[in-house]
Amino acid sequence: MRIAIDAMGGDQGPRAVVRGAAEALCAHPSLSIRLFGPQVRLEEELSSLPRRYGAVRERMSVHHAGEVIAQSARPSQALRTGGSSSLARMLDDVAAGQADAGVSAGNTGALMALSRRALGMVAGIPRPAITTAIPTRGGGRCYMIDLGANIETTAERLVDFARMADVMARHVDGLEHPRVALLNVGVEATKGPAMVREADERLRRLSSLNYIGFVEGDGLFNGDADVVVCDGFVGNIVLKSSEGLARMLVERFQTTFAAHWGSRLVTLLARPALLRIKRQLDPVRYNGASLLGLAGIVVKSHGRADAQGFAFAVSRAVQEVRRDLPSRLAQALGQSAIPSVACGPGDSGFSARSRPDDFNPER
Amino acid sequence: MRIAIDAMGGDQGPRAVVRGAAEALCAHPSLSIRLFGPQVRLEEELSSLPRRYGAVRERMSVHHAGEVIAQSARPSQALRTGGSSSLARMLDDVAAGQADAGVSAGNTGALMALSRRALGMVAGIPRPAITTAIPTRGGGRCYMIDLGANIETTAERLVDFARMADVMARHVDGLEHPRVALLNVGVEATKGPAMVREADERLRRLSSLNYIGFVEGDGLFNGDADVVVCDGFVGNIVLKSSEGLARMLVERFQTTFAAHWGSRLVTLLARPALLRIKRQLDPVRYNGASLLGLAGIVVKSHGRADAQGFAFAVSRAVQEVRRDLPSRLAQALGQSAIPSVACGPGDSGFSARSRPDDFNPER
Repeated sequence: MRIAIDAMGGDQGPRAVVRGAAEALCAHPSLSIRLFGPQVRLEEELSSLPRRYGAVRERMSVHHAGEVIAQSARPSQALRTGGSSSLARMLDDVAAGQADAGVSAGNTGALMALSRRALGMVAGIPRPAITTAIPTRGGGRCYMIDLGANIETTAERLVDFARMADVMARHVDGLEHPRVALLNVGVEATKGPAMVREADERLRRLSSLNYIGFVEGDGLFNGDADVVVCDGFVGNIVLKSSEGLARMLVERFQTTFAAHWGSRLVTLLARPALLRIKRQLDPVRYNGASLLGLAGIVVKSHGRADAQGFAFAVSRAVQEVRRDLPSRLAQALGQSAIPSVACGPGDSGFSARSRPDDFNPER
Repeated sequence: MRIAIDAMGGDQGPRAVVRGAAEALCAHPSLSIRLFGPQVRLEEELSSLPRRYGAVRERMSVHHAGEVIAQSARPSQALRTGGSSSLARMLDDVAAGQADAGVSAGNTGALMALSRRALGMVAGIPRPAITTAIPTRGGGRCYMIDLGANIETTAERLVDFARMADVMARHVDGLEHPRVALLNVGVEATKGPAMVREADERLRRLSSLNYIGFVEGDGLFNGDADVVVCDGFVGNIVLKSSEGLARMLVERFQTTFAAHWGSRLVTLLARPALLRIKRQLDPVRYNGASLLGLAGIVVKSHGRADAQGFAFAVSRAVQEVRRDLPSRLAQALGQSAIPSVACGPGDSGFSARSRPDDFNPER
C-alpha cells in the first residue's frame, strides 16, 4: 500500500509530518510513503530523523514540489495557481494511481477543491463532506458530518452526509446498523430550521438507514448515535468549541489540583492521570478527518497535529484503503464512480459542473 | 424588590423551585418572592421547608394558578390556552407591576411567547433573544447570544443581539468596552454564511460597539470576547454540546482516577477536587438565561436546575432589576419602550405584528 503525503501542510512544518509518516510506517509494515514538498527541505528532514526510524527510511520517497499553498489562500486561488504545490502534486499522484490515498494537514478549503478536481466525485455527490470520529461516553465514538466543507447547504445534502457517514461506520468501523441522527435544537418533529425538518422527512423514508431522528447537542457526546449529521457551519463550530472547552477543563483540573494539594503532590500523583486524560481528549488522538464523496481517499490531518497525531491521520487513510471506501460509497449510493470533473474558478471554487444528483430515489 | 416565580416549571418539580426561592431570599435581605402555582401544592412545599429557611418564609407569598404548561407544548398552544397557567399568571404579575421581574424553569418557547405578549418589547426588537454567561479560560466569562430563541434569523437580528448583550455586559457586569464578536468558521471576512458576513459588515459600521470581528468555536472558551453572537440554532447546539462534553470529561476524570489509584484513594484525595470542578462547570452555577429585548425582566432557569441552581437564576434577575436592564436596553437601542403588542396565534406564535425595526441607523 502506498500513501502520498503533502509534507508542507501542518502548523508545525515538515518535521512533524515526516516524523509522523515514519511513525505510521513503523505501525504498518506493508506501507510505503511518498512525500511531496521541496526536495532539499524534505531530504534534510529525512536525514535528521531519529535513529529509531532507520529501518523505515527506505519505505519513504521524496517527490519535489516547490510551492506551498498558504493557510489563508482561498479555494479559488488554489485552483487557479496551486497546480505545482505540494498539495496538488500529492493529489495528482493519487489520481494517477501512484498512491492509494493522500494525506495533508494543509488548507482545508484548498484540499477540498483540489481533491475534487483531481479525483472527481462518486454517485452524483457534488462536493466532499468532512467527517471525523469524536469520543463519546462509555468509550465509544460517533462520526460527526459535516465539519465545515458545506457551510450553506440543503436538506438533500444532509441526506447525502447521512448516507456517506453510514457507509464509513459500517465498513471502516464494522458497525452493523449504525444509528444515524440529525443534530437539532429539540427532538420533536416541529423543532428546528426548515432545512433540518425536511432532511428529517427524507431520512424517515430511507429504509436503508437506521435513522433514529433528532439528537440535541448533549446527545453528541452521550453515545446516543453512531453518526450525527449537521451542516458544515454548525459542525465546524461545535467541533472547535469542544476542543476549546476540553482544553479549558484540563487546565482547570490542573489548577484545582495544584491549588488544593500543592504542586509536588500533583506532580507525583495527579499528573499521570491528567496526562492520560489529556491524551484521551486530544483531537490529535482522534486525528484524521475524511473527505467523503471523492472518488479516492483523502484524509485531512489537524493543522496543529504533532508527529504522533499525523501518524494517526495516516493510519486512518490506511484503514480506508483496506476497506476500499470509495467503492463502498459508490455501491451504497447506487452508482459507480464518476470520472474526474472540471471545476470552474468561481468564487467558491465549486461551481456546479458536476452531474445532477440523480442517485437519490426520493428526488 | 419583588420577584414573581413560576413554581411549576423545573424538571425537579416545585420543591426545588421553592427551596431555590428560599435560598435566594437568604442572599437578598430586601427581596420578597411571589410564587405562582397550585395553592395547596405550594403551601405544602412551604410548610415542608427545612427549618433554616424559617426566617425568610414570611417574604414568600403564594398566588394560585391551577394549570401548568407542559414542556412539550408549542408556543402557539401556550398562547391560545395557557392564560391561567402558573407561567402566564407569573408574567401578568410582572406586567401589572406587582413584581419587578419574573423567573421560570419551564418551557422556553412558551416563556418567550407569553413574555412577549405580557410585557411587550423595547426599541423595535421583534422577539426576545436568550443569553447566558459561559465560563472562559482564566476565570472570566462571556455572554453567548442567542441560545435558541431565534432559530432562523437575519443579519439585522444578529446586530440586535450584539447590541443587547453589549448592554448586558456593560451594565450588569460593569465592563467598560465589552469585546463583541461574531461566531464563525474562520476569521477572514470571506468566511461563513452570507448572513454572518452581512452582520459583520453592519457591525463594523456601528461605532458604539467594541466589535472585534469573527471568533471561531475555540474562541468561545478562550476568553477572546466578552460577547459572542450567533443564531439560536448554533447557540443552542453549542451550549448543549458543551454541557454534554463537560459531563463526559468529569466522568472520565473520575474513571481514570479510580482505575489508577483505586477507589479509596479517590474518595480521600481526588473527590473534593473533582466535586469542586464539577460545580465550577455545572451549567447550574452559571444558571439564569436572560430573555433580552422584553420591556421587562424575565430569567429562564435551566430545567434541570436544583434548588441552588434556581437561586442563581433568581439572583440573576435581582441584578438585572438593580441595573434597570430594560431601560438601559431601550436607551442604548435609541428608543423608549414600546407598549405591549398583541401576538397572533400563528405557527410559531410570533407573527410579525410588532413595530417595524426602525431603530437601526443602517437600515
